[in-house]
Amino acid sequence: MNTNKKRLSDLQRLIKKEKLDALVVSRPLEQEFLTGFRMDGYVMLVSGTEAWAFMPKMLLEQFRSRVPFVSASSPDNTLEAVLSKVREKRLRRTAFEPGTETYLRGSFWKKSGFIERGGLTASLRSVKEGSEISALRRACRIAARAFRLIKPRIKSGRTEISVSRELNDLMQAMGASGPSFNLIVGFGPDSALPHHVSSDRPLKKNSAVLLDFGCVYGGYCSDITRTYFYGRPDEEFKRVYSVVERAQKAGLNKVRAGTPASEVDKACRDHIAAAGFGQHFIHGTGHGVGLEIHEAPTLNTKSKEVLRAGMAVTVEPGIYLHGKFGVRIEDSVLVKKNGCEILTR
Amino acid sequence: MNTNKKRLSDLQRLIKKEKLDALVVSRPLEQEFLTGFRMDGYVMLVSGTEAWAFMPKMLLEQFRSRVPFVSASSPDNTLEAVLSKVREKRLRRTAFEPGTETYLRGSFWKKSGFIERGGLTASLRSVKEGSEISALRRACRIAARAFRLIKPRIKSGRTEISVSRELNDLMQAMGASGPSFNLIVGFGPDSALPHHVSSDRPLKKNSAVLLDFGCVYGGYCSDITRTYFYGRPDEEFKRVYSVVERAQKAGLNKVRAGTPASEVDKACRDHIAAAGFGQHFIHGTGHGVGLEIHEAPTLNTKSKEVLRAGMAVTVEPGIYLHGKFGVRIEDSVLVKKNGCEILTR
Repeated sequence: MNTNKKRLSDLQRLIKKEKLDALVVSRPLEQEFLTGFRMDGYVMLVSGTEAWAFMPKMLLEQFRSRVPFVSASSPDNTLEAVLSKVREKRLRRTAFEPGTETYLRGSFWKKSGFIERGGLTASLRSVKEGSEISALRRACRIAARAFRLIKPRIKSGRTEISVSRELNDLMQAMGASGPSFNLIVGFGPDSALPHHVSSDRPLKKNSAVLLDFGCVYGGYCSDITRTYFYGRPDEEFKRVYSVVERAQKAGLNKVRAGTPASEVDKACRDHIAAAGFGQHFIHGTGHGVGLEIHEAPTLNTKSKEVLRAGMAVTVEPGIYLHGKFGVRIEDSVLVKKNGCEILTR
Repeated sequence: MNTNKKRLSDLQRLIKKEKLDALVVSRPLEQEFLTGFRMDGYVMLVSGTEAWAFMPKMLLEQFRSRVPFVSASSPDNTLEAVLSKVREKRLRRTAFEPGTETYLRGSFWKKSGFIERGGLTASLRSVKEGSEISALRRACRIAARAFRLIKPRIKSGRTEISVSRELNDLMQAMGASGPSFNLIVGFGPDSALPHHVSSDRPLKKNSAVLLDFGCVYGGYCSDITRTYFYGRPDEEFKRVYSVVERAQKAGLNKVRAGTPASEVDKACRDHIAAAGFGQHFIHGTGHGVGLEIHEAPTLNTKSKEVLRAGMAVTVEPGIYLHGKFGVRIEDSVLVKKNGCEILTR
């Protein structure tokens, strides 16, 4: 069975397990995950045993030849066609995903009696299989290698933007198809802004340097953050760096199948709080990575997910001292039965 | 007044004109359009005279320094904070955009008494100003130039995918930040699939070649399609090509401020129908281009929009003969008072 057929049947198993009759899949990302084929502008309906796709006429021929295991048709009105199929097949408990569906379409499903049920495709996507892990591993290694190559080239006078561009060029030269998000390069006080947008600030001697970046390889995203001091670090930087480094280690030590995601967050957070920097760790500890740079599961204080073998997540605690500097250390890791594999090495 | 402040005040004028008190803006793309600053994960509320942004703590400092003209805060619950502000300011007629808002958030707005009103930000974005036109012009020229460079290099044996990659490389070498969509390269029968995904099919002598591509420059997207015959075209190809070429000319001749978008479609469609190929023109005539590759207005039989000076749209009729070949000719053009400027030249 090919990868996509397998994914589709995994979704069908999940649909039955959740005591549903069918699920509407309308996001191109999830459709591609299930069919292996990316095309905007159509709607899929997946039941416990079958799958249908409703699309404009101009997409039909190509879809049929590429995705023979999904029944495709080209009705006048896509939404009404989904509804007709649901009635014809008596799919009484048909769900849609409210967090990703548009309000316009979601209201139509709701009015038609469909059920709101979030996170089914996200949960399916969160556990990675062989080919996905290979792509993630490669995306992560390219990023880690780009850091080693660029670090000696980051010198006084270079701007954040020029470093961000070169990082991207280096990763593309190693086979990446592009950056996995807007790369963050922060010098000095800019490193204290967790979601800093790289500016034309030039690097000065004796400043913190924070690089948060990643690339896409084979459709999969990597995410890594490295912080270091350019020049001679003072005691405060050394202290903060060491706290974050140990916090990250404490978090990484928790990562294994069966651990609640919130416990990884707690391990990092407790360590930082015990060192007296609790109020300076102003974001969650991590998130899943895969086809999207941020996907399930989330690793923060409110997380309900339990880690499963094959999930790929980031562990990225940080301490941000306003106007001075910030330190964040982030790796993308693969959850294993008895621990984790650090991918960004 | 800077560009973004001007756009925000244009939106405020539109809000008042539409007899609304406020609009929720929650898509990153529109937020960036209004603030000049891209950041995921926050919500904006814009009234006729003010603007607020509600975001996680870690984004706050940077947002405030970059977007001083919007009041930013970091509440515990973003949606509730929007609602409190609406009550505090008595914004009785607050709207959200149902076509882009998620069902999850949209349901909260709806339950809170907000009004559904689509297309406000899209309408604002559809008319381009000076700096946007410069970026579009550049994106279009890069694409047009890439075609001239690549055409002599497309020879027997080259695959669709290799041409697609080289097109992208050529555009990036000319300054593009990336492709504006999944570039379409179709040889022979593949040219008959309007949304073909480039494959490893090699070019054979005496085949149609269809290239539908574009790039992003300064955030703005270009879109162009060129079709030609590699080898010696038969009478059928020559005839179809000439029908599409004249249909496109008929469409382009209609483009000017004040013309209903549907009339541009009708001009192309009538010409193709009169030549006997009506059932082979299986898509709309065009769409707006800008920050997104497909945006307002649409140019098809059902279009309600009227063209306005400063809109950038594509005109792209096509004829597709199943199993044989397809011909599509597409240019991106700028709507002017008395006609249009072809940007993809």
